[in-house]
Amino acid sequence: MNAEHIKSILELVRSGKTTVNEAFEQLKTFPFEDLGHSKVDHHRLVRSGYPEVIYCQGKTKDQVADIVKCMLHRGSNILATRACEKMFVKVKELTDKAVYHSVARIIEIKQQEVTSPQTAIAVVCAGTSDIPVAEEAAVTAEALGNKVERTYDVGVAGIHRLMDHIALIRKARVIVVCAGMEGALASVVGGLVDKPIIAVPTSIGYGANFGGISALLGMLTSCANGVSVVNIDNGFGAGYVASMINKLDQ
Amino acid sequence: MNAEHIKSILELVRSGKTTVNEAFEQLKTFPFEDLGHSKVDHHRLVRSGYPEVIYCQGKTKDQVADIVKCMLHRGSNILATRACEKMFVKVKELTDKAVYHSVARIIEIKQQEVTSPQTAIAVVCAGTSDIPVAEEAAVTAEALGNKVERTYDVGVAGIHRLMDHIALIRKARVIVVCAGMEGALASVVGGLVDKPIIAVPTSIGYGANFGGISALLGMLTSCANGVSVVNIDNGFGAGYVASMINKLDQ
Amino acid sequence: MNAEHIKSILELVRSGKTTVNEAFEQLKTFPFEDLGHSKVDHHRLVRSGYPEVIYCQGKTKDQVADIVKCMLHRGSNILATRACEKMFVKVKELTDKAVYHSVARIIEIKQQEVTSPQTAIAVVCAGTSDIPVAEEAAVTAEALGNKVERTYDVGVAGIHRLMDHIALIRKARVIVVCAGMEGALASVVGGLVDKPIIAVPTSIGYGANFGGISALLGMLTSCANGVSVVNIDNGFGAGYVASMINKLDQ
Amino acid sequence: MNAEHIKSILELVRSGKTTVNEAFEQLKTFPFEDLGHSKVDHHRLVRSGYPEVIYCQGKTKDQVADIVKCMLHRGSNILATRACEKMFVKVKELTDKAVYHSVARIIEIKQQEVTSPQTAIAVVCAGTSDIPVAEEAAVTAEALGNKVERTYDVGVAGIHRLMDHIALIRKARVIVVCAGMEGALASVVGGLVDKPIIAVPTSIGYGANFGGISALLGMLTSCANGVSVVNIDNGFGAGYVASMINKLDQ
Amino acid sequence: MNAEHIKSILELVRSGKTTVNEAFEQLKTFPFEDLGHSKVDHHRLVRSGYPEVIYCQGKTKDQVADIVKCMLHRGSNILATRACEKMFVKVKELTDKAVYHSVARIIEIKQQEVTSPQTAIAVVCAGTSDIPVAEEAAVTAEALGNKVERTYDVGVAGIHRLMDHIALIRKARVIVVCAGMEGALASVVGGLVDKPIIAVPTSIGYGANFGGISALLGMLTSCANGVSVVNIDNGFGAGYVASMINKLDQ
Amino acid sequence: MNAEHIKSILELVRSGKTTVNEAFEQLKTFPFEDLGHSKVDHHRLVRSGYPEVIYCQGKTKDQVADIVKCMLHRGSNILATRACEKMFVKVKELTDKAVYHSVARIIEIKQQEVTSPQTAIAVVCAGTSDIPVAEEAAVTAEALGNKVERTYDVGVAGIHRLMDHIALIRKARVIVVCAGMEGALASVVGGLVDKPIIAVPTSIGYGANFGGISALLGMLTSCANGVSVVNIDNGFGAGYVASMINKLDQ
Amino acid sequence: MNAEHIKSILELVRSGKTTVNEAFEQLKTFPFEDLGHSKVDHHRLVRSGYPEVIYCQGKTKDQVADIVKCMLHRGSNILATRACEKMFVKVKELTDKAVYHSVARIIEIKQQEVTSPQTAIAVVCAGTSDIPVAEEAAVTAEALGNKVERTYDVGVAGIHRLMDHIALIRKARVIVVCAGMEGALASVVGGLVDKPIIAVPTSIGYGANFGGISALLGMLTSCANGVSVVNIDNGFGAGYVASMINKLDQ
Amino acid sequence: MNAEHIKSILELVRSGKTTVNEAFEQLKTFPFEDLGHSKVDHHRLVRSGYPEVIYCQGKTKDQVADIVKCMLHRGSNILATRACEKMFVKVKELTDKAVYHSVARIIEIKQQEVTSPQTAIAVVCAGTSDIPVAEEAAVTAEALGNKVERTYDVGVAGIHRLMDHIALIRKARVIVVCAGMEGALASVVGGLVDKPIIAVPTSIGYGANFGGISALLGMLTSCANGVSVVNIDNGFGAGYVASMINKLDQ
Repeated sequence: MNAEHIKSILELVRSGKTTVNEAFEQLKTFPFEDLGHSKVDHHRLVRSGYPEVIYCQGKTKDQVADIVKCMLHRGSNILATRACEKMFVKVKELTDKAVYHSVARIIEIKQQEVTSPQTAIAVVCAGTSDIPVAEEAAVTAEALGNKVERTYDVGVAGIHRLMDHIALIRKARVIVVCAGMEGALASVVGGLVDKPIIAVPTSIGYGANFGGISALLGMLTSCANGVSVVNIDNGFGAGYVASMINKLDQ
Repeated sequence: MNAEHIKSILELVRSGKTTVNEAFEQLKTFPFEDLGHSKVDHHRLVRSGYPEVIYCQGKTKDQVADIVKCMLHRGSNILATRACEKMFVKVKELTDKAVYHSVARIIEIKQQEVTSPQTAIAVVCAGTSDIPVAEEAAVTAEALGNKVERTYDVGVAGIHRLMDHIALIRKARVIVVCAGMEGALASVVGGLVDKPIIAVPTSIGYGANFGGISALLGMLTSCANGVSVVNIDNGFGAGYVASMINKLDQ
Repeated sequence: MNAEHIKSILELVRSGKTTVNEAFEQLKTFPFEDLGHSKVDHHRLVRSGYPEVIYCQGKTKDQVADIVKCMLHRGSNILATRACEKMFVKVKELTDKAVYHSVARIIEIKQQEVTSPQTAIAVVCAGTSDIPVAEEAAVTAEALGNKVERTYDVGVAGIHRLMDHIALIRKARVIVVCAGMEGALASVVGGLVDKPIIAVPTSIGYGANFGGISALLGMLTSCANGVSVVNIDNGFGAGYVASMINKLDQ
Repeated sequence: MNAEHIKSILELVRSGKTTVNEAFEQLKTFPFEDLGHSKVDHHRLVRSGYPEVIYCQGKTKDQVADIVKCMLHRGSNILATRACEKMFVKVKELTDKAVYHSVARIIEIKQQEVTSPQTAIAVVCAGTSDIPVAEEAAVTAEALGNKVERTYDVGVAGIHRLMDHIALIRKARVIVVCAGMEGALASVVGGLVDKPIIAVPTSIGYGANFGGISALLGMLTSCANGVSVVNIDNGFGAGYVASMINKLDQ
Repeated sequence: MNAEHIKSILELVRSGKTTVNEAFEQLKTFPFEDLGHSKVDHHRLVRSGYPEVIYCQGKTKDQVADIVKCMLHRGSNILATRACEKMFVKVKELTDKAVYHSVARIIEIKQQEVTSPQTAIAVVCAGTSDIPVAEEAAVTAEALGNKVERTYDVGVAGIHRLMDHIALIRKARVIVVCAGMEGALASVVGGLVDKPIIAVPTSIGYGANFGGISALLGMLTSCANGVSVVNIDNGFGAGYVASMINKLDQ
Repeated sequence: MNAEHIKSILELVRSGKTTVNEAFEQLKTFPFEDLGHSKVDHHRLVRSGYPEVIYCQGKTKDQVADIVKCMLHRGSNILATRACEKMFVKVKELTDKAVYHSVARIIEIKQQEVTSPQTAIAVVCAGTSDIPVAEEAAVTAEALGNKVERTYDVGVAGIHRLMDHIALIRKARVIVVCAGMEGALASVVGGLVDKPIIAVPTSIGYGANFGGISALLGMLTSCANGVSVVNIDNGFGAGYVASMINKLDQ
Repeated sequence: MNAEHIKSILELVRSGKTTVNEAFEQLKTFPFEDLGHSKVDHHRLVRSGYPEVIYCQGKTKDQVADIVKCMLHRGSNILATRACEKMFVKVKELTDKAVYHSVARIIEIKQQEVTSPQTAIAVVCAGTSDIPVAEEAAVTAEALGNKVERTYDVGVAGIHRLMDHIALIRKARVIVVCAGMEGALASVVGGLVDKPIIAVPTSIGYGANFGGISALLGMLTSCANGVSVVNIDNGFGAGYVASMINKLDQ
Repeated sequence: MNAEHIKSILELVRSGKTTVNEAFEQLKTFPFEDLGHSKVDHHRLVRSGYPEVIYCQGKTKDQVADIVKCMLHRGSNILATRACEKMFVKVKELTDKAVYHSVARIIEIKQQEVTSPQTAIAVVCAGTSDIPVAEEAAVTAEALGNKVERTYDVGVAGIHRLMDHIALIRKARVIVVCAGMEGALASVVGGLVDKPIIAVPTSIGYGANFGGISALLGMLTSCANGVSVVNIDNGFGAGYVASMINKLDQ
């Protein structure tokens, strides 16, 4: 049931073709906010360039291609995360607009322009092994229309490398910090910068890293203020939150 | 070593009283950014009303009072979190400005006005048992100069209660969601609102709640976009992050 | 916004005092099912004798009494679980109808009769230490209007004791099994009876019991069909589910 | 029944006061029912259409085929869960009656009709990735003779989709809810419907999902009443319990 | 034994070809042994001196005394484990035979003599803090009629102390090893002695000991053959198993 | 340094060719019990038929063959556990005596006879999937010279199957119980039999089984006396301990 | 059996009063290294000032006093860790030499001088709440004769405070770093200094700190080289290891 | 900005070409210790032979080769850990100096001599399966210029083997102990030797080993003094720390 449907019921009431009670019976069961919610949502998505997102892990390349095909005609932008090269080849056959960010493992299909905020998002990561997660965050944020400043391989064991770039990081409106192992980079950046920090624990490490738990717990118990955390390896989520914050009215 | 000190060294170089090499020896060991960093920091703190914060848990009332006494003369605002009634009595003897928020367990001492953003922070919680954590977030955010809209006891098991208030929640610039047990409220709110959500798992529950782990994992794996998470019961941290986001230039 | 409110809007449309578009604007934001949902719910609760429930753990006796006072005038039945003796004394001052089930730690206030199904619920427990949890389940089920057959202290280490009572257990329509330690009773009963079994792991045990985890995992991985599980020590939840099943139309 | 009792029965037989058949009737129900237990059971199974079940995971296709061959001549229905396509090909050679439900990964062999209850079981799942588990539950329930209503991809992050189908879900006699990640769907459905809910945590997710632990803990600590839980990914178990409840005398 | 078999026995009784007693002898061993199981068991317990055991933790002194009172008239020996001094005072009022082993926290009431094997059980522990658990094992074994050789405070960090006593330990028929922290003593003793070793992890330690988990895992993964493990702090269980082994026919 | 060496030193002292102090210096550093310990050990091993054991998992077939080649000339019996078919083919080339127990995944090489006790070891398992672990225990026990009675597929969900075989199990001197999932079989057998029980948790199961943790915890917290536990899937260890107990002087 | 005993046997051999075989029989059973090991050990302890250590937690003040009394006459230095004020009062009655370090909770009794290395140990901690653990390390190291440089409250969230003291820390020969929460300080210091770092995770924190696990995992997975870790809150252990390293021949 | 740059600024000040304020502005933003820190570091690395290290796990052979190519021209020594044979073939093409330590899985490229301490590092391991980790430690320590004494396969279940080599181990300045399973070897060696011990838990084992957790917890809770721990399987880290300690000024 959509807005037109509701209005038509109201029209029938107005014209006396339907009684108040009949109209009430029809209305009382209509779905939650169906009249506007999803539509408004849809409008907002289209307008702001929020993409439709496919999480490819555990899907076959054919399944991914099928989903993309369905989405293409809606005209909105599309992100397919955790996508492999083979999926891209398949998607590329559907549309020339498909671009593959291989490190981020993201397929991006841009069908319309996105309005961009003036301010940038900084994406920082601790080691070279964390780069795929950082890139997932960065490419996501860019696809959502944000300017992104990357600062990679600035782990706390060589803190002078971080210091060399801290001025640039401080200029961002919001900062994504990706780190595995002990995840200490979030605390250190948090202590040096007074901007919101989205911390992404990565599963990089071995042994007592336990697939990212060490970094996750480290970031959750960070002694620095201003740090909030997303799921292990969730670069997409971090890029999305950061974009949301960066796009708050300026 | 501060700016004056550095300038005096430079002055000595300029006047020829110190050689370049002597000056270099002195400068190469001077502390990191001590010349300006902490000072700027301090100025920023004072200007923006960022309070100095005492975490009272595990401290005696005398220890808390001692720390407050030290801080009072600096002129900045003070928050003492996880404070009990007896600590407040002791602090009240030091200053009439001390106010006790008993549910939030926060002692607030306001020594100067804080600039406030136009937009509000929504603080939402699932059950009445989550209110102390929610209040810690709300009082923190207010002490930092934010307008706060509280929506309490809107757990997902009675989702119509949440729906009754969703319009209000949507108006906020950033939303803090506190929930124990399965922590599902963060996902549900995240699905209804396109604003950044700071999720606070609470330790409310028993058995398989494991002191907040069920809510923590639930929030980290939320199917909704835009959700980031702070430590279990960390109302202060959530209020702080929310304030940081709400105060981004508008 | 309730049914009356909606009808009044429709009436205004009908009479031409409100345009279709104006009515639509008002309707599109009205809260979810507020027109009927909670009211119907309330009616159903009252009619079927579903009690209002207070979880007392972590509350003071005064808080419990305050909540009971609020609820009393609504006329529905009240259960206060995890209640201690002192809470009962306080509640008893409010109403003579209050009864204390000391082993189950439940205060029951019966303000109206509840319709009862013909069939019974069996509540079975492994050791004497599991009885409080079993009683929480049994008293809850009884308060909801069910006939309850108790079979206690029939742990699997002395399986002949269980066999002596298995015929009685088989007659029930649904069975609650409470067990700590290895929680094996659920599997054994599940293998002997073809009725739905609600398994309640208890925190009884020490060491590798880890506060009920051993029983919880044992019940979740039960080799018997027909077993589903509720939270550790959640006698109330098990009694509630069992009642729900027992009251399905017969 | 003790030794004296048995001897007195034998004495009555000896003296001709009791016939052999009467004595047998008395004896056959004492202690462990070994004389008849499995037989009665078997009758019940055959009569009610309870299938014999093979858990295929970790078995070779030849092992599965061998077990099916053994079972075929007993005449009962057969379910082989977690079966792959290759196993089906092998089983199909044994009997034309074999049907493969590829999404549910179940091979079904129907050798006799099953009596069906009037009421339906609702199977609901949160995301498309949860569908295999949901289908395992649905196909199991159908094989056991139940009518099943499927409602898929109604995760809580888009709660209006759930609302669109809630009326249908409410009509079922018992509801299976499958969800991974935070597993919040069980709580939300539990708050909207007053029917027993069998919650199935799925292992869908990554990072802090920990192979289904996040959903498992979330469902165990659900704030909604009426929710009980089966093992992670245990669609079969949920379908079986739901069928048991749905088939309770109506 | 099936229905036909039983009926044929009954037929023989009826026809006088078998006496009642002969038939009883045949019947009494079939299925579940309910006719005699508990009785035979009881006889065995009384004869072999197996005590009746009360686990006192979590019980009040009055509850313990009540249970003891019930048991006293049966004439068997009684062990009350995890008993405090106050419980003993209460029990002592019931019978002069009560003895309190304060370190082991066991109340022993000996009502009849127990037959003793020739061989001894060695009870070994790592540190002085493990002694209560070791004593629980030793006193249990003694109460069950075994000779016990104690070797305490021989932790692996000072392995020469263990070596000073290894000859004595080797003479035992079975060995109980109690150790907290890393629990390495079980492996070391296991490498030096070719007798069955019952390892008891204790909860002694702090931090990464996690209430006995470090010792538990260490003992389960022991590189020595011949080691099996009981629950954390379960001295009683270890003493019981050791006695069972020591009493195997010699 | 061996007995001969020590005696030669003493001889030199006796003959005056070495001073007391010189002899002392030589003696004080001689290795631990080298004079006799390992030799006696070796003799004992050879005499009692204790095999030399190779744990093959993680080794290549060539590595396994190399180790076997080294061991062959010592004349003792050899067990290679967790061995695959390909390893056997390789080992078979070295000696015709090699036998492969494919279910147990053990290669056995018998080079000498082993003395056997009169009594048997019962090996019991819950499901067909537990058989490989049970066979590892059974074959190990047989290789060590024990008579083994196997009772497989008697899980607690069909307890009558266990009851059909309980008399046989009771006749054994010691019992190995292998079970995955909830591991309840150990408790049930422990309640029915008064012999030492070696419980082996298996990793059979999924979801909340967590690779055998559910069975492990269930067995450690067993409510039955007489149960001790070895590592998950450690059939070899259980067979070894059981043999040790069975071979205690009779 | 000690060195004198062995020499006397050798003397008897030399003088012909004992035969070689008689001597061998006596020698072959003497305990491991008893001739010298413990004595040398004792001498070494006394000479180097290694104290005898009592872990007081879980002991009564009387038990502590009893142990101290036993140790006093041996003349060595004594440390009693995790000691409370009341224990000190009791110990002070035994000897005037007792000193109480209240923050470190250590009672020290110095009975002889200890040789000191030239180099210092740096003890660094992150927050004021970590100071008790840091002091336990520092006082232990001092009691063992080391010079200790303390640098407290230099957590990574305010990294400039650490930088102010890094030169001092760099001068130490070995560094103890105590930190709770995310434990990141160990990594940061490890990146700035090329000396061995002993990291002590503390249990300071709440929620996802899980009693020190977050800091423990963070330190174990540190991205900095040169970091090794001791148990949670184990200040004594860290001080001991650091002293061992600092005292290596210089 | 480096030392030359700073000196040139000072020179400009001295010569009056730059004012004090201008110089200050330039200096206050210069990077952290860039003037000397990294350079000194670099000098130190080159001088002391500290290698540059590549962690190869998770990298392709091409990525490893690329990194090696970059490093080669800097002239420092290179270690590539967790490297497979194929990576070595690729690297060998770049330089003839590459050597592959296959058990340690380390590629070593020695471009300059390293100064060596007089004292040795002992590397000890429990079982043959632990040898790869032990070799990683040993080869790392050797590459850093240390003399290494290996003592392998001396697990605590056969403690006499350890005793045969204890004298050699005692002569080392620092000891690395690698052990899986229960990790008890660290405690036993720690009790026999008064040198710093770096314990490396290995992931060797199965079941309750949980990928090295049993050994990790065992080593962290070791009852021996002088033991500190590195991450599971972190042979490189242990070799590095041991080298650091061994190279402290002698």
